[in-house]
Amino acid sequence: MKKIIASILLICSICVAFAQMPPMGKVEYKTMPSKILKQDREYAIYLPKSYSTNPDKKYPVLYLLHGGGGTHTDWPEKGRLTDVINPLIDSGEAADMIVVCPEAGKNFMNYFNNPDWMYEDYFFQELVPFIESNYRVVADKKHRAIAGLSMGGGGTVIYAAHHPELFSAAYSMSGYFYRHDNLFWINFNDPVVKKVHQLVEDNNCVKYVKNADKTKIEAMKTVKWFVDCGDDDFTFKANTEFVLAMSEAGIPYQFRVRDGGHTWEYWHTALYIALPFVSNNFRN
Amino acid sequence: MKKIIASILLICSICVAFAQMPPMGKVEYKTMPSKILKQDREYAIYLPKSYSTNPDKKYPVLYLLHGGGGTHTDWPEKGRLTDVINPLIDSGEAADMIVVCPEAGKNFMNYFNNPDWMYEDYFFQELVPFIESNYRVVADKKHRAIAGLSMGGGGTVIYAAHHPELFSAAYSMSGYFYRHDNLFWINFNDPVVKKVHQLVEDNNCVKYVKNADKTKIEAMKTVKWFVDCGDDDFTFKANTEFVLAMSEAGIPYQFRVRDGGHTWEYWHTALYIALPFVSNNFRN
Amino acid sequence: MKKIIASILLICSICVAFAQMPPMGKVEYKTMPSKILKQDREYAIYLPKSYSTNPDKKYPVLYLLHGGGGTHTDWPEKGRLTDVINPLIDSGEAADMIVVCPEAGKNFMNYFNNPDWMYEDYFFQELVPFIESNYRVVADKKHRAIAGLSMGGGGTVIYAAHHPELFSAAYSMSGYFYRHDNLFWINFNDPVVKKVHQLVEDNNCVKYVKNADKTKIEAMKTVKWFVDCGDDDFTFKANTEFVLAMSEAGIPYQFRVRDGGHTWEYWHTALYIALPFVSNNFRN
Amino acid sequence: MKKIIASILLICSICVAFAQMPPMGKVEYKTMPSKILKQDREYAIYLPKSYSTNPDKKYPVLYLLHGGGGTHTDWPEKGRLTDVINPLIDSGEAADMIVVCPEAGKNFMNYFNNPDWMYEDYFFQELVPFIESNYRVVADKKHRAIAGLSMGGGGTVIYAAHHPELFSAAYSMSGYFYRHDNLFWINFNDPVVKKVHQLVEDNNCVKYVKNADKTKIEAMKTVKWFVDCGDDDFTFKANTEFVLAMSEAGIPYQFRVRDGGHTWEYWHTALYIALPFVSNNFRN
Repeated sequence: MKKIIASILLICSICVAFAQMPPMGKVEYKTMPSKILKQDREYAIYLPKSYSTNPDKKYPVLYLLHGGGGTHTDWPEKGRLTDVINPLIDSGEAADMIVVCPEAGKNFMNYFNNPDWMYEDYFFQELVPFIESNYRVVADKKHRAIAGLSMGGGGTVIYAAHHPELFSAAYSMSGYFYRHDNLFWINFNDPVVKKVHQLVEDNNCVKYVKNADKTKIEAMKTVKWFVDCGDDDFTFKANTEFVLAMSEAGIPYQFRVRDGGHTWEYWHTALYIALPFVSNNFRN
Repeated sequence: MKKIIASILLICSICVAFAQMPPMGKVEYKTMPSKILKQDREYAIYLPKSYSTNPDKKYPVLYLLHGGGGTHTDWPEKGRLTDVINPLIDSGEAADMIVVCPEAGKNFMNYFNNPDWMYEDYFFQELVPFIESNYRVVADKKHRAIAGLSMGGGGTVIYAAHHPELFSAAYSMSGYFYRHDNLFWINFNDPVVKKVHQLVEDNNCVKYVKNADKTKIEAMKTVKWFVDCGDDDFTFKANTEFVLAMSEAGIPYQFRVRDGGHTWEYWHTALYIALPFVSNNFRN
Repeated sequence: MKKIIASILLICSICVAFAQMPPMGKVEYKTMPSKILKQDREYAIYLPKSYSTNPDKKYPVLYLLHGGGGTHTDWPEKGRLTDVINPLIDSGEAADMIVVCPEAGKNFMNYFNNPDWMYEDYFFQELVPFIESNYRVVADKKHRAIAGLSMGGGGTVIYAAHHPELFSAAYSMSGYFYRHDNLFWINFNDPVVKKVHQLVEDNNCVKYVKNADKTKIEAMKTVKWFVDCGDDDFTFKANTEFVLAMSEAGIPYQFRVRDGGHTWEYWHTALYIALPFVSNNFRN
Repeated sequence: MKKIIASILLICSICVAFAQMPPMGKVEYKTMPSKILKQDREYAIYLPKSYSTNPDKKYPVLYLLHGGGGTHTDWPEKGRLTDVINPLIDSGEAADMIVVCPEAGKNFMNYFNNPDWMYEDYFFQELVPFIESNYRVVADKKHRAIAGLSMGGGGTVIYAAHHPELFSAAYSMSGYFYRHDNLFWINFNDPVVKKVHQLVEDNNCVKYVKNADKTKIEAMKTVKWFVDCGDDDFTFKANTEFVLAMSEAGIPYQFRVRDGGHTWEYWHTALYIALPFVSNNFRN
């Protein structure tokens, strides 16, 4: 009996401890209306601890994209975003920033436009303006960055290539940059799967860079690019093709290959590189 | 409708993918009988992927201790043990090994003996022999190591100090090495809390090293020691006192202070150092 | 014969290659007059590659101090400063900055004032103003930082504690913070050695923090502090005493203990942490 | 005058300190006769500190190759081998090992055989046997590894591919794997340069892997391969081609891309990865 009481007391004391702990940056789950998509859309938003205590401060924003089949809770939960960003902000390695994780995994999983699901339009015409009018944001290129994993890495590159005037930095992790026909677990004969992958292939960023004219290439040079991909990742070859195309086009970039595959542990640890990288550009 | 089918197909295809994936090291939750504690005791055990395919191979064992108020599922779940150890074994940075996480958090949370709860006796007289007779283990000092966090860091040091003949390496993370009277969230007037902390204080490892005679010190030198503690950790001062006592006693050790506090993110990342460290000693 | 020609051709071709290489940040060795010290004083200065091509740009400055018995060429040569800083600036991890390495090793090796050798006065009254009027510098607290190794670590802490209004960040490596009487290789009976070490002891920064009044402590909180010391360093104990005194005084700091001793390899690798750290504060 | 004496005393005291320091692993420069090359050949050899104190111990050997235009003193001097390996051995991250740096830069700079300069024959028929009969070496595959930079990275891959029965591990840094015709600083019209590069091209390891038959591929699988190349390196594309060929052939490997170019700082830091990697295989 005494033992049970001891356990309870210890648990209580831990709760008290948490109640008295200093404020920390945290994630909220919200929704916003979308006319383009004709429905409410979910998003997760990370607000740093100074957000509530420093009511005049304006913040840079990182848009952080999930992967294919994922959702807006992925980065906070599977990627353990706050576990990484809070200490990095405290030590100064990351800037005080807002992080927005959109929801692109439902319905027609995709970051790209098609007649039934104009997601890219939603992102630029509705989500970004919504964030910038509902949160205290420095709404300029320098203070806006984008990052994402797998299909969200593809989205990161294409979004920043389509709108280099909007982002100072773009960080792709394990980018799924085009249709990989050799993935045995995907049934490419299914008409819907086919359609999704056709959109991915239509937004092949290796081809985008190879076919870009001078104007597009010059515009892309105004973004700081970072490509990160594991040596065991099935997207590895596509990632090397992308950086070689960037190199050929004369667009500077950072490339890192670390140990690992297409896993959350890889993306979790990528945050330790991505957050300081976008911060350097926010503050430059 | 088509959209729902697309989602289902994608989820199915991911399941198929997993079904066809190569075997991976994984964790099992088990129980074992204990005469000393007069009850069945739980433990978690990690078996590397070669364990089932290589039926003649024998393995080194790491005993990995949870913290105060924790349990045997902590390292697999909160510490995400397999996310770290599987790639480290694949790349050769960690040795093929078994990891055992005992359950010491229930009843009278404690790694130390007291008349009501002889946990240290259970560990050495029942758990270790049970593992060594039920799994394919190389049962010698060289192939046995111990590590743990917080109260489990204290347990790590005391167990390896009491039995240096049993362990080649000991790795303490954020070790709670003695009673910290200034922890506002602990009610030290409660008789049970008092008793638990008295046991912790009785096993103060800073005092242990300071008071150790020549024989004990020489024995301790046969273990490779590693102390890891965050610069924001409330146990930081105790950890420096411990390493300075070790230094004074002439016992070699490694010490690292990284950025962070008393958090699972710290212990999760500690695995990237701890697993290669114990492996170097398993293989030396 | 052909072989010799081949060698010569290859060497030539390498020279040609270097001649055509893009401009890089580099170090110059200079002197400046000092009325206080009644002699010309040497210094090394690193100018980033943009310094000559971007004639309107102004730069933050890091003052980087050598150790006891050292000189202004130490950081460029033994610490291989440009090997580290050039790639860090290129990747954005370090800010475009000027680095100044003063000469404090000759005559009366010391960063501190004494009637015969008012080095601290020289530093603040002559060197800093000289740099700020002869180079394109942003001459404010935010864009000024200080770092140093061993006795230069002690100098770093004391200079930033005496003048917190001048520095945004201070990074000490393997700081020699007070007289270590147990260094068998120093003859403390020699009157000159005695005098030097008396000055070091007079500027004991552990005591400085312990004895600081509220005003001094509040001022110290406006500097970002970073303490870095190897686990095998003979200054390790002093470094823990310093950070515990800082902690007691409520002054935030970063502390890291990495593997190593009192060596140039430790300080060389410290640059990978120190340069981004001071950059974060330059850009914050 | 007193000041000069102080300086002298300090310098003396430092000398005394070094004289009393514990023994450390160090490099010796030696020569050995070669019948094949018809001359004495130089080499550098690193012996760990236990080599002299532990006269019965036998050691694994790493052969560490310099780059084109380099020499056997490069790794000890430019790569600062002992600064890295001594602490790694002390902390257990690297195994106690011997490191041999052959001289391949003079005369006809090349690791490959041609009628005038049978260097590969010298390496396998004379150098390796000489080392194994003149030093205390464990002369088997498991305890033998090879690593090298640039042309020495190409040599590393080809040597380990020709003799997979001799090496447990091969680590290539910034490998120059075939003739790069676009290097503006090389005069490919010069007959000698042409000849050297013809040999490099004849030993193109990308082609070697692509053309290897089943037997060769199976043999290559018995070596642990590690490929390390900077994202700014002019050999980057060749390195990705090599790892993709390895992947296609089903030969497991580790690949890392870190920040940097074709520089000694890159190779110096590569030692922190290479030495533990080969050690893991020595001890496995």
